Amino acid sequence: MEDSKKIINTGLRGVTVASTRISHVDGEAGKLIYRGYPIFDLSDKTSYEEIVHLLLHESLPDEQQLIAINDRLVANRTIPESLIAALKTQPDNALPMDILQTAIPMLANNDPNAAEVTIENAQRIAESLIAKIATIAAAWHRIRNHLEPVPPDPGLDHAANFLYMMNGKKAEDVTARFFNVCLVLHAEHSFNASTFSARQIASTRAHMYASVAGAVGSLSGELHGGANTRVMQMLEKINSINAIDDYITNVLDTGGKLMGLGHAVYKTGDPRARILAPMSRQLGEITGNPKWYDMSVTLEEKGKKAFKKKKGIDIYPNVDFYSASLYHYMGIPADLFTPVFAISRIAGWTAHVIEEQFGGADAKPVLYRPASDYIGEYCGPEECAFVPLDDR
Amino acid sequence: MEDSKKIINTGLRGVTVASTRISHVDGEAGKLIYRGYPIFDLSDKTSYEEIVHLLLHESLPDEQQLIAINDRLVANRTIPESLIAALKTQPDNALPMDILQTAIPMLANNDPNAAEVTIENAQRIAESLIAKIATIAAAWHRIRNHLEPVPPDPGLDHAANFLYMMNGKKAEDVTARFFNVCLVLHAEHSFNASTFSARQIASTRAHMYASVAGAVGSLSGELHGGANTRVMQMLEKINSINAIDDYITNVLDTGGKLMGLGHAVYKTGDPRARILAPMSRQLGEITGNPKWYDMSVTLEEKGKKAFKKKKGIDIYPNVDFYSASLYHYMGIPADLFTPVFAISRIAGWTAHVIEEQFGGADAKPVLYRPASDYIGEYCGPEECAFVPLDDR
Repeated sequence: MEDSKKIINTGLRGVTVASTRISHVDGEAGKLIYRGYPIFDLSDKTSYEEIVHLLLHESLPDEQQLIAINDRLVANRTIPESLIAALKTQPDNALPMDILQTAIPMLANNDPNAAEVTIENAQRIAESLIAKIATIAAAWHRIRNHLEPVPPDPGLDHAANFLYMMNGKKAEDVTARFFNVCLVLHAEHSFNASTFSARQIASTRAHMYASVAGAVGSLSGELHGGANTRVMQMLEKINSINAIDDYITNVLDTGGKLMGLGHAVYKTGDPRARILAPMSRQLGEITGNPKWYDMSVTLEEKGKKAFKKKKGIDIYPNVDFYSASLYHYMGIPADLFTPVFAISRIAGWTAHVIEEQFGGADAKPVLYRPASDYIGEYCGPEECAFVPLDDR
Repeated sequence: MEDSKKIINTGLRGVTVASTRISHVDGEAGKLIYRGYPIFDLSDKTSYEEIVHLLLHESLPDEQQLIAINDRLVANRTIPESLIAALKTQPDNALPMDILQTAIPMLANNDPNAAEVTIENAQRIAESLIAKIATIAAAWHRIRNHLEPVPPDPGLDHAANFLYMMNGKKAEDVTARFFNVCLVLHAEHSFNASTFSARQIASTRAHMYASVAGAVGSLSGELHGGANTRVMQMLEKINSINAIDDYITNVLDTGGKLMGLGHAVYKTGDPRARILAPMSRQLGEITGNPKWYDMSVTLEEKGKKAFKKKKGIDIYPNVDFYSASLYHYMGIPADLFTPVFAISRIAGWTAHVIEEQFGGADAKPVLYRPASDYIGEYCGPEECAFVPLDDR
């Protein structure tokens, strides 16, 4: 129906859809910046609570602000009884990401002010969601194992409290501290697929809950957040350093890929991987089980060489690669890796929803409505003549 | 951090993101085509079941195919007991769109094969979702009114069965017939916001349920599917033909808009509105309550003139405008108008998910990952120097 062949912007690569003040991914330089601050400075010097303040309120908090946001997050950790009751109706083998996606709109059901689209309300809901999503993920892990959910401990920070609610006992200090770094590292990453989903849904003036539930769905995909679970599955499948050579050969022969190696944006390495790797090494040593870290290092080195030699391409570990062994050492089951990603990234999602609906220069009451090229020439270039049922 | 000012493709207007065989919206000519067939031919000559076959299986069914797809849809209408139990845990005043969004992933929880990404599985889930979403919406309406859900009646077609499950009694023939036309008209509309959400989520290789749940969130926004509810709210607010002049004057003076008049793509009128209007007129006559139709006609005429005169712009009724009075005559409460939209549009969403993951020339294992322009110069053009908490 179109006269000229249109340019198809497959995957929207390189198409700028908005300006943003939230973060910057410099793929060439291998840099990630949250509202002005490089991730290398933030990762081991800040708490996730400080990052939430930075992303939602545009500054690193001073002491009073940190106390205030911490109090608000702690006060918001408890989830409605009706949500726990609803989760208990669900089959034990439900996928945890599907549980998260089902739970977020239930929080809306319990929020009498869910639908009011103002910046203050969006910030309120954002903090509530950030606090509660950790409780939901931990509660589901308990419920599916026929255990009662563990109530949040107001004396623990966000990272330590999640591990406590999941396991029913407090994590070692080093584990909680490293988990906090993981939350900081995963909190925000510009217009990745799930964040774009959140913004795109929010652009219709849908409320924060609806937007975040969509983002959860997007993150569940194996090409996005689902990848960290698949790294662990790959490591478990290989299961020994000696089997790595054969595995890489097989992947190359069958046109497959090595999970967690390569990234759409970072062309010279993902800065987050360089921060995650030493933590995995340390926990491997502490737990007396260095195997998964050692395998990861060997797989990175050998995989990099093999892909360069056979395909002429450089592959570097991305954020998922060392997260897998690290989360494993923390006692997190592989099918919760992606929910753990969500628990952190929700800070970025909610900041982007706020920017989409209320932010800056190109803030707009306009929804994303791209064009498409119709090639449905079922009856040649003309329209199809309708044929009644009896004559088909 | 960028050297040159980038072009921001706000709302992706005019940016072609994919080729599609599913539908064509010709905004200039005021035409809508489903897989080769103009909507004017399909609207009153086909059942929604035929349209589902056309969208999912690329042809209008012959008699045998129609019997087969009808049997599959009927067999899929029943929803899991655990889902009904979960809905009963939720507050009566929950927004129905939030209930739909929460329910879709629960269907995944009850589908042991939810996560397998193959075209056959996607088609199976699509038909199951199309059948079940009507049952869910009707069940919720019963539950929130403290009534037991009405089991589906296999002797009724999709349209009549929904009205039966919602009201607990069979609709008049003319009502069921007109409701079928509404389902046909709303089934598909190219890359609208909710469909784009579904495709965008599916591009991560998330499963069908996750993608559709995201689309439900997108449809809930008042700039998208939420608009039909707001048309009815506007009519109820005006409440008499005599008050229309003042209402329009006030809207023009305050820079507001008339709900349901105007469309992002149709510049010469929405073909669906022309099909909906006579049905609203007829039901207004039959029910002896022509007020809402009469008000709509007057509002259209006077609104069109006033906007042309004061603002120099042409506004035409879109699909939401006459849907509002029509659904009202059918006894559908205003807050179910958007869920009713979802019940129909899910056919388009699922067809697009299948096309995104398995379709045609630019089918691709690539996710949507647009670019953005970072303007977060919190510390000037340089990065911010980190300041420890004690020194902030």
